Amino acid sequence: MALIVQKYGGTSVGNTDRIKNVARRVAKSRAEGDQIVVVVSAMSGVTDGLIKLAKEITPLPSEREMDMLLATGEQQTIALTAVALHAAGVPAVSLTGAQAGIVTDGVHTKAKIQNITPDEVHRLLDAGNVVIVAGFQGQTEEGQITTLGRGGSDLTAIALAAALKADLCQIYTDVDGVYTADPRLVPSARKLPEISYDEMLELAGAGAKVMQLRSVEFAKKFDVIFEVRSSLNENPGTIVKEETKSMEDVVVRGVSIDKNQAKITVEGVPDQPGRAARIFKALSEAAINVDMIVQNVSHAGGVRVTDISFTVDKPDLLKASKVIEGLKPELAFTSVTTDESIGKLSIVGVGMRSHSGVAARMFETLAHEGVNIGMISTSEIKISVVIDLKDGDRAVKAVHEAFIG
Amino acid sequence: MALIVQKYGGTSVGNTDRIKNVARRVAKSRAEGDQIVVVVSAMSGVTDGLIKLAKEITPLPSEREMDMLLATGEQQTIALTAVALHAAGVPAVSLTGAQAGIVTDGVHTKAKIQNITPDEVHRLLDAGNVVIVAGFQGQTEEGQITTLGRGGSDLTAIALAAALKADLCQIYTDVDGVYTADPRLVPSARKLPEISYDEMLELAGAGAKVMQLRSVEFAKKFDVIFEVRSSLNENPGTIVKEETKSMEDVVVRGVSIDKNQAKITVEGVPDQPGRAARIFKALSEAAINVDMIVQNVSHAGGVRVTDISFTVDKPDLLKASKVIEGLKPELAFTSVTTDESIGKLSIVGVGMRSHSGVAARMFETLAHEGVNIGMISTSEIKISVVIDLKDGDRAVKAVHEAFIG
Repeated sequence: MALIVQKYGGTSVGNTDRIKNVARRVAKSRAEGDQIVVVVSAMSGVTDGLIKLAKEITPLPSEREMDMLLATGEQQTIALTAVALHAAGVPAVSLTGAQAGIVTDGVHTKAKIQNITPDEVHRLLDAGNVVIVAGFQGQTEEGQITTLGRGGSDLTAIALAAALKADLCQIYTDVDGVYTADPRLVPSARKLPEISYDEMLELAGAGAKVMQLRSVEFAKKFDVIFEVRSSLNENPGTIVKEETKSMEDVVVRGVSIDKNQAKITVEGVPDQPGRAARIFKALSEAAINVDMIVQNVSHAGGVRVTDISFTVDKPDLLKASKVIEGLKPELAFTSVTTDESIGKLSIVGVGMRSHSGVAARMFETLAHEGVNIGMISTSEIKISVVIDLKDGDRAVKAVHEAFIG
Repeated sequence: MALIVQKYGGTSVGNTDRIKNVARRVAKSRAEGDQIVVVVSAMSGVTDGLIKLAKEITPLPSEREMDMLLATGEQQTIALTAVALHAAGVPAVSLTGAQAGIVTDGVHTKAKIQNITPDEVHRLLDAGNVVIVAGFQGQTEEGQITTLGRGGSDLTAIALAAALKADLCQIYTDVDGVYTADPRLVPSARKLPEISYDEMLELAGAGAKVMQLRSVEFAKKFDVIFEVRSSLNENPGTIVKEETKSMEDVVVRGVSIDKNQAKITVEGVPDQPGRAARIFKALSEAAINVDMIVQNVSHAGGVRVTDISFTVDKPDLLKASKVIEGLKPELAFTSVTTDESIGKLSIVGVGMRSHSGVAARMFETLAHEGVNIGMISTSEIKISVVIDLKDGDRAVKAVHEAFIG
């Protein structure tokens, strides 16, 4: 008897027919004799609808109250999923994040899981139930309701799998698995049977929308092997696990483009120690994630000045601009410019470690396509470039063709 | 500085504009220097929408899961109300029923409040906040989410007012107060400045939709004086309180018609001790409330048999019929008939105790209108008759005219 954690995302539970479909799948797994824990997201559209209501009232609602509001989305899905399992003749009990023992810190809307006490989950499983846990949410030790931020339901599933010492963790979504590129952009893209945590991390960080960084990091840290697969068919998905020797044979595992970033350039910053640090500390204090950073030194009127460019998530752009503008008196820079029309193109593969010339080949491919490169950043197993948004899809295809075929 | 509990129902918080209106009202009360606890219902339509989703999955969803599902409605409203108060510059914190210390028994969908530990509410009030509490819900000692059934938000408000020893409890709704009859049926109906708990109880039990029985009973038991008033204007409402001497001067305080009842007749029950008890015990075990009961003895083929008629809430009719049918082998009755086309017309007033001939005058009035009376039941301060649904509105008008004018 195995213990399996299955996570179903918003589209997989998007309406009551979909929820019944999930119940059928869970019932089938259970009929094979396994213990099943189901983690569900809010029905697609529900969270956005709630955010819209709050924004109708005020543009910047309190984060504590947003957690109170948004946690209801998953709570609705767990109840409906339990009802659907009952209708399928399967004993099932729903639990909120708090009831499932998920304790987080108090950073509302972006809380971190601190620990999980899965006693109640175990008790209900041992009594023969399927246990349905609300993803995306937890509770502080003081009893405040928190949410885990984007992709939080995946995190709930993986953290629960770790805490329960589950035999298997399945992340059901609306795609078949992890592809070498977005099949909507690149028709020749193919599904990967397996991928390493690090590659998955770099792809997630590079805008591949399958999973959020944090969930993969958590899985890597606690060695939770998980499978990304579709809730709409029986196809095997992609197994995400620790790197194996044979994985290095492939130079580029995947190509992705992130269209959700924006670029900010702070121009004419006097080139003195600590100025860049000041900028990124201020952004960090405002809880804004910065991705790529490029700095060039130049001379303006005989004074050494630098231009600092960086990218942030598009929704954070306004907030980030304001933070930077607020530093103007202190840092004495010339101006701040922003650009929302960018795409971040990335190639990822553990094989890069043992293969040389990968960057050159990527840049040549882009040059051949007439695509201009604005920023470059590299890691051990990833190369990312910022390009014009309008060149994005074309560039992905060309690079995929060059490395994967 | 007074402590005021204000409760706003589903229509009062029916959309974000209405919620902003509530925030303005609360802000105004608070500006007068009072401590305010706000209890809110789910936005109108939300609860019904959730019930519809569950019924799309299965006709009889588990009550435990319905509580899990429906509790989200009020949780959404508290968060949005807090957000609206913040936007109005008022510090406010929302609390679920559980967070507000509302402990109930474990009877899902119809839980009873066992006790309230309002420490957190007091702490937040003392820190200068308006505290917004989710109506209609609580938590068992074991941490199960429960709901209090219809009218549960009123109950939350009154129970909180008692637990907090509030100076005032205001039940805001979409009507101006308690009327001598439904003004939509009886144009000459007028608002009552005050009414006794007992009259309010009888009117509530008689289908006047202002408040549910339980809330008034709770208020009476704990001596919570409350005011029923509109959230849409500044008119004074109706004060509900212990009976005073002067109240007896009025014979009939109000006339109501309950169109939400159905009649069940069990025909040909052998007239032996314990048979009626068996019927009503079975209904009680199925958690079906029975209102009026009439029993007649007759003879069928030389055997003494009885016909037992009673009324139940219309939504319980099917369930009740099934319960009765299940008793057929045991009780050996002839048949069960049901009638959904009935109305229960009631007149209520503490003055009935000291005035005679009230029933006769009521029956004469109905006879004069050609309205047939099917069942009669009386209490010390109420007379109810079951009539044909089609005669209902006409009968209410005639009886109001006869007693109130």
